[in-house]
Amino acid sequence: MKKMLEEAQAFICKSVEDVDGGAKFRLDQWTRENGDVGVTAVMAGGKVWEKAGCNLAVVRGSMPFESFRLADDRARHQGIDRASGYKPGDKVPFTAIGLSSVMHPRNPHCPTMHFNYRYFETENGLWWFGGGTDITPSYLDKDDMKHFHGTYKAVCDKHDPAFYPRFKKWADDYFLIKHRGETRGLGGIFFDDLNDRDPEAIFAFAREAAMAVPEAYLPVVKKHVNDPFTEEQKRWQLLRRGRYVEFNLVYDRGTIFGLKTGLGRVESMLMTLPETARWEYDHKPAPGSPEAEIMDAFKKPREWV
Amino acid sequence: MKKMLEEAQAFICKSVEDVDGGAKFRLDQWTRENGDVGVTAVMAGGKVWEKAGCNLAVVRGSMPFESFRLADDRARHQGIDRASGYKPGDKVPFTAIGLSSVMHPRNPHCPTMHFNYRYFETENGLWWFGGGTDITPSYLDKDDMKHFHGTYKAVCDKHDPAFYPRFKKWADDYFLIKHRGETRGLGGIFFDDLNDRDPEAIFAFAREAAMAVPEAYLPVVKKHVNDPFTEEQKRWQLLRRGRYVEFNLVYDRGTIFGLKTGLGRVESMLMTLPETARWEYDHKPAPGSPEAEIMDAFKKPREWV
Repeated sequence: MKKMLEEAQAFICKSVEDVDGGAKFRLDQWTRENGDVGVTAVMAGGKVWEKAGCNLAVVRGSMPFESFRLADDRARHQGIDRASGYKPGDKVPFTAIGLSSVMHPRNPHCPTMHFNYRYFETENGLWWFGGGTDITPSYLDKDDMKHFHGTYKAVCDKHDPAFYPRFKKWADDYFLIKHRGETRGLGGIFFDDLNDRDPEAIFAFAREAAMAVPEAYLPVVKKHVNDPFTEEQKRWQLLRRGRYVEFNLVYDRGTIFGLKTGLGRVESMLMTLPETARWEYDHKPAPGSPEAEIMDAFKKPREWV
Repeated sequence: MKKMLEEAQAFICKSVEDVDGGAKFRLDQWTRENGDVGVTAVMAGGKVWEKAGCNLAVVRGSMPFESFRLADDRARHQGIDRASGYKPGDKVPFTAIGLSSVMHPRNPHCPTMHFNYRYFETENGLWWFGGGTDITPSYLDKDDMKHFHGTYKAVCDKHDPAFYPRFKKWADDYFLIKHRGETRGLGGIFFDDLNDRDPEAIFAFAREAAMAVPEAYLPVVKKHVNDPFTEEQKRWQLLRRGRYVEFNLVYDRGTIFGLKTGLGRVESMLMTLPETARWEYDHKPAPGSPEAEIMDAFKKPREWV
């Protein structure tokens, strides 16, 4: 898994650098006192991207059983919990390997993209895969969404025709900013606790999904990178980035878990935040405007393929 | 309490407008379906302040006993819980009245200020006061901190000489961004669950603390409003605003409680977020710089008076 994610990190960073044509990813190899290791790749001041990061981490820890269950979803883990033999109060040693990334372009017509692919294993042999790729445009382009979702549907369908509908809905549910009643972006795929078949089969799916990031995302960026935009459109993008921050700091399971437990490296986890974000009191897009059009899709998730 | 906070809101907004000399507060009187009412005063695009808000809210609800305890601190409430007769599973009807405010100036040498004064009462007669005022500079000016903390020490001392040391430490502890190991700002006073004496005496203290906001804060702003500043200093201010957002969305008890329970009005609660904030990967101020100097005070809270 580590080797596969290293290859994915190198391939994705290279593909992004080629499109940017300006900045390069800076590699920051880090080690924490507890033995965690990682490589954080960050690109700042790109021509196309304002901030792009891609973080590989191998994190080891030992969590109280309660936190361990809370780290993922309580209900979905019940099967795993029963099998594990752990009970409240026990400490569960685990290893997590993950690659996660967020890329925030400058042009408000180019969407932000996030992905994360990870593998968990506990000392007594519980294991599962999680991950997904999702897209966050500030303006709606249906063809872009058809391309992005279509790419992931094709990847999913090769492994299991049940994957795309299930993981597409999971992304819509997961990336919900509950207090706003709107999604962070226009979804993609998201899955967690996947351990219902041969691990090699799930590994192959995770690998293909990670390697599909450039194909799914970069054509959309290239299409819009020279779109003209107004100051008002830039402002709308920054307001949507404010929502991105709200989701990541209030709801994102991995971020909150990492920040509250001290597991993981803060700078690498918060690399996902945009370089700049904006909040205005009670901002509402004008009815019928392009901003209102995409808000409608944030409020009622749609099918794109 | 409501009348007192209305007076404080009018007095503080007027005092701030006088110093700004440009924008006025826009009053937004709101009512929610459940009967909650409030007046959100927001100033955008001021000459001195980028964004300033002051929100009065009367919120009624009925919370499961467990959430009710979590709304404040579990341990500190044990005395109250024992007296109340409520047990897990019970619904506890309550009313909360509060005035809260955050003011973010443009000039990086002018500090951000936050205050909140509130009163809770449950149906069967439990009650307590909470609140405080705290200051968040981007650059350290010891005389400013002496003035701000000194003003609140004087207010506290008139009511109880034990208040200032206790509430100053409480603010240092409360406004800690745990994952960063640094405080949000340079403190002030913070208290909660105050019900250990005649409510009229606590009311008089809360009133005086709220009415002291202009005296404690505005001289500091006036002193620095024309200080020249560089682009780098503005950037540092925006990075500190990023930290402000991290605290409010990850740790602030009232914000998280409101967002997760749906109690309170989202736009009014999130009025506290800055208009703009910034995140850069692994930013560290140069040793010996003014930015490093204030970081030292964020990492090790000091006595200012």
